[in-house]
Parts: sequence; C-alpha cells; structure tokens
Amino acid sequence: MNKQEITLAHGSGGRAMQSLIESLFLAAFSNPALNEREDQARIALADLTAQGDRLAISTDSYVIDPIFFPGGDIGKLAVCGTANDVAVSGATPRYLSCGFILEEGLPMVDLERIVHSMAATAQQAGIQIVTGDTKVVQRGAADKIFINTTGIGVIPADIQWGTAMIRAGDRIIVSGTLGDHGATILNLREGLGLEAELVSDCALLAPLIAPLRHISGVRALRDATRGGVTAILHEFAAASGCGMEINEADLPLKPAVRGICELLGLDALNFANEGKLVLVVSPAAQAAVLTELHRHPLGQDAAVIGQVTENKQVRLCGAFGVSRRLDLPLDEPLPRIC
Amino acid sequence: MNKQEITLAHGSGGRAMQSLIESLFLAAFSNPALNEREDQARIALADLTAQGDRLAISTDSYVIDPIFFPGGDIGKLAVCGTANDVAVSGATPRYLSCGFILEEGLPMVDLERIVHSMAATAQQAGIQIVTGDTKVVQRGAADKIFINTTGIGVIPADIQWGTAMIRAGDRIIVSGTLGDHGATILNLREGLGLEAELVSDCALLAPLIAPLRHISGVRALRDATRGGVTAILHEFAAASGCGMEINEADLPLKPAVRGICELLGLDALNFANEGKLVLVVSPAAQAAVLTELHRHPLGQDAAVIGQVTENKQVRLCGAFGVSRRLDLPLDEPLPRIC
Repeated sequence: MNKQEITLAHGSGGRAMQSLIESLFLAAFSNPALNEREDQARIALADLTAQGDRLAISTDSYVIDPIFFPGGDIGKLAVCGTANDVAVSGATPRYLSCGFILEEGLPMVDLERIVHSMAATAQQAGIQIVTGDTKVVQRGAADKIFINTTGIGVIPADIQWGTAMIRAGDRIIVSGTLGDHGATILNLREGLGLEAELVSDCALLAPLIAPLRHISGVRALRDATRGGVTAILHEFAAASGCGMEINEADLPLKPAVRGICELLGLDALNFANEGKLVLVVSPAAQAAVLTELHRHPLGQDAAVIGQVTENKQVRLCGAFGVSRRLDLPLDEPLPRIC
Repeated sequence: MNKQEITLAHGSGGRAMQSLIESLFLAAFSNPALNEREDQARIALADLTAQGDRLAISTDSYVIDPIFFPGGDIGKLAVCGTANDVAVSGATPRYLSCGFILEEGLPMVDLERIVHSMAATAQQAGIQIVTGDTKVVQRGAADKIFINTTGIGVIPADIQWGTAMIRAGDRIIVSGTLGDHGATILNLREGLGLEAELVSDCALLAPLIAPLRHISGVRALRDATRGGVTAILHEFAAASGCGMEINEADLPLKPAVRGICELLGLDALNFANEGKLVLVVSPAAQAAVLTELHRHPLGQDAAVIGQVTENKQVRLCGAFGVSRRLDLPLDEPLPRIC
C-alpha cells in the first residue's frame, strides 16, 4: 500500500480504514459525540430544546471541479454550503454529518488539506462534525473526491421565516455582490486568465443572519447557490404565488464578474454564489435589515434590488426602463459548480 | 435533451432539475416536511422529545456495484443501511435526508426504479425522506449513481446501549446467517454462477430490535456491514477493553455462502451483511433475547456464537478446539460492497 495516496483498502472496513479514521478524521474533527465511535452520534435533546422548537435539517453533496479554488476548497464549501442551508431557516447550525467518496489514487496530502479546511471552518462556526462515513471507489469510478454533509440546527420558537410569509409590496434584498463563486470557477475551468481578480465568496452566513432574528418583518431568506439569484426568485414566486421584479441597475456586481459576463454573454443572475443571501422583507423592515447587513463584513455591499409584485411573473427592469421576463434557464453555464 | 437518461442539466439548478425534483423525487417521497420545498426540512422538536431524550444521527454513502442485485438495489440499501445504523442505538429511525450523485447518461428508468425502491422501503419502515439534493457529473466522473443518506431517530430515555456497557462474561449473539450480502455481490462480480442460491440479506432491522428494549442486560448492538462480524468484534474489543471469543462451529452460515468461502479460501466472518445484528448481552438476558429474535422472521437463525473475555484478544475457537487470533484484515475481499 502506498501511504501517500488513497487505496481501495482505505474504504474496506479493515485496518487501513480504521487507521485513516483515527489518524485523520478523528484527530481533525474531535468532539465528544464523534469520539464515542458508535455507529451513530448521540445528541442530548435537552441541548436542542433549550434553543428553539424545530429541528432544521439540510443535506448537500459537493462534487465541485476543481477541488481547490481561490477563496476555498471542496471541504470549506461542504461545511459552509450545508450550514448556510440550515441557517437561512433562522436556525444556528450546530451539527454536521460527513460522508466522503474518495477515488483510489487521491493524493493523501489533498485529502488532509481538505479535512483540515473542513475542521477549521466548522470550528470557526461552532459546528461539530459528529458522525461520518468513508467510501473508496476504484480509479475512474469517481473524480477525486465527493463530500456529502448533512446539517442540523434548531429554529428559535419566535422565528417563522419561509416563503409562505411573502406578500406583494415586500422588498427583495441581496447581501452582497453576485456571481463571484460561479465566475471564479468558470474562469478556472475555461482558462480565461483573470485569476487575480476573481475569488469565490464561499463563507458561513450564520453570523450575518443571527442579528436579523430580532427584526420583525423578515419574511424569507435563501442562499443563492446553483441557479443563482434567478433560481431563488423563481422559487419564491412559485411558493408564494406572488411576482418578483428586480432592477438591473441595482444589482451589486464586481467589475471582474461584470467583465466575464460581457465577454461570454452570460448573466451573473444565473451564476452560483456560496456566501450570498436573497432576502424578502417588509417595507417597514427594510432599513433595519440593511443596517444590520452593512454592519458585517459579509454584508457590506447589501442592496435592495427589487420588490414583490402581485403579477406572478419574475421580471427584470433594464437600465432604460424596459422590463422583461427573467426566465429560469433550462441549464446553468457550467456543471460541477458546487 | 434526451428525456430517457440523466443529463448535466438535471443537476444545474435550472428548469430541468426542478422538473426532475417535482416529477420524480417529490412524487415518490411526498411528506409534509419535504413538500414545503424549503432549503431545509423543519421538524417539530415536541414530536421528538415525546419519544426519548437523545437524537441518534448516522450517515452513509452507498457506492455499491452492481446497483441491482438479488435481494435489493442501491436504493433499498441506502434506506436500510442508514436506518439500521440509527436503530442499533435503540432509536426508532424516523427521518432521512438523501443526496444523489448521478452520472450523466444514467438511464432514467434505473433512477426511477431506485427511487421507487427507496420510497417503498422507507414507507414500510415509517421513515420520511424529508430533504434531499441532486448532483449530476459528466460521463466517467462517477459510476452510475452514488447515494448518501443521513438518518435521525430518538433514543428512549431508559435505553443505554453502547460499547461502554460490555463486561467480561457477556454473551455474543448474531441475529442470523452471516455473509449473505457479501457472498451475493462477490458471486455477481466474479461471475461464479451461483445466482439461484445467493440473496442479499438487505433488510430493515428496527422491527427486530424494538422488542429488545424491554429486556434488561442488553449491552450493545451493531449491524455487521463492511468488514463483517470480524470488524464489529474488533470495535467491541477496542471500545470495551475486553476480549471477544467466538466458536467456529456456532456460526450460522447458509450452505451457498459456506461453499463460496471454501471455493475461494475466504472467511464469511469478514463478509459484509446488510441485515444482521451482532449483540452483546448479559448471561441473564441471553434466553430472553434469543426468544425475541427467534419470534421475528429476520431473527429465526439467531444464535449465541461466543462470549466476552477478560483477555483483550479477539479469538476464534476452531472445530477441533484450537483457538487462534482473529485478526482484522488490512483489506476486505472486494470493494464497493455497499
């Protein structure tokens, strides 16, 4: 066995797997529930009921290519992405499970870098990785590494955020510049040569969301990942029965992202983000929400981009006042964005 | 787009993905939490605290090859395997998350068959698939389909099963014949031609476990999957500081499994099972546990196979009374067994 790379034995249930689990995963993720080494993590319900009245559970698999990119890696993404899907419910993400699917031949140094990135990101967020699984498939049966994380948090009893709360007249806010993650990956994959200017926005959003719990009039939050802001607006519209109208001139975009879109004829509204919220809030809550978002480094570029309408369409008002339907594309610019 | 097979668009966050989610996943798995279509499932904690005092959380990714086999398929396995890892804590498995990684070109009919198998298995067990995720990777970047499931249940307050409870003198019981799953997959993969006699034991163990909750003296349960009974005995020994001694003559084996082992020089103790418990119980509990196991179709062949010793080794007593160390193999007979 070559100790410098992953072999099939690392997934076989024998000594090689035990050794990998102990020397890497248990060492990096150490916490009481994981260290019990039972087939399941055991979490006291009393710890959870003290925080709220509903569990929030979310799962995502991460298959991003490349696995390392400016601003993050597949491990950081796997912690942030799932934690964010939990956090937009109003919950504080607390626990993660983690399932690795590794390709035979994956350099051990790459796995170590990814695992340490996961551990550092989780620790920063106060999240414990409490249970896990490792599978190894033969060369060519997977591409390097896929990670599934499932996240759990508790929603405070007085928080009732969700698409059912959305009303015509509400404001649509984004928490920062759009499309940074998608443009960064597109640039890497297509070799566009803009490396210095493009960085993924991959980040934990829970600290940005927590202060919003005290503002009444927050209707619904989502993080705009695959499918971008366009997909979120369509989800909001379908679930609420309302329309969504946004203004092109109000969209916060970094110059490099704007440039890549103009170069390739793509729309940053469809690009994936990995650290951006789309929020619907009441008109009365708008000022307070923007103030709280602007206080946090992740929300400095937060802006109102439009409003909820009675008309059930999703529309974009262009720079010259012309409004058009913003259709959900059949497809996205590129696969394996997350 | 060819509607008869999975395309990259099905994982892109656009209309093709929405359509797959609605027409297949939501239709098959329908339940209140899933149907909310939020980024996370929301589960009332009051429903959980009524059942016990601790959450049990377990995750597994399934990469089995082939995806269809006698006795099951990757979908049934993904529900049973994770539900069993939750159930061996004493919890009733209640909720599952589900993450699909699909290879471009997967026949839609295969995905439908797998999803319907998952739905039927979950329904039979009273388990709800409450949240999910779908990724598609290009041809050659994964092998057909990988599934991650994460399961949640609640452990009743009076159940304290775990390796820390194991004492020298305790009895070791298995719930039925050993190695059926591993031998079935080995037979298929190696083309040994014994199809008619070999069937995976893939099954939900919660109904077999539930009656054991009322017996005092149950110490610890595990389901013997990858690494087989050997791996479980080593886990029990390492966690308890005790030894494990089993008797070769007492191991329940189907003739076809015994035959395959003799043919290939392999040990059924190392073969994966997908519906078999290894239990450690006090001597006083042995009779009551066997009676309850024998009552259930899945436990008809349950047998005491050995006892816990003070000597910290894992040992196998052969037919002629000769005892030898039962080492944990570095590797398993074959990869992608689950």
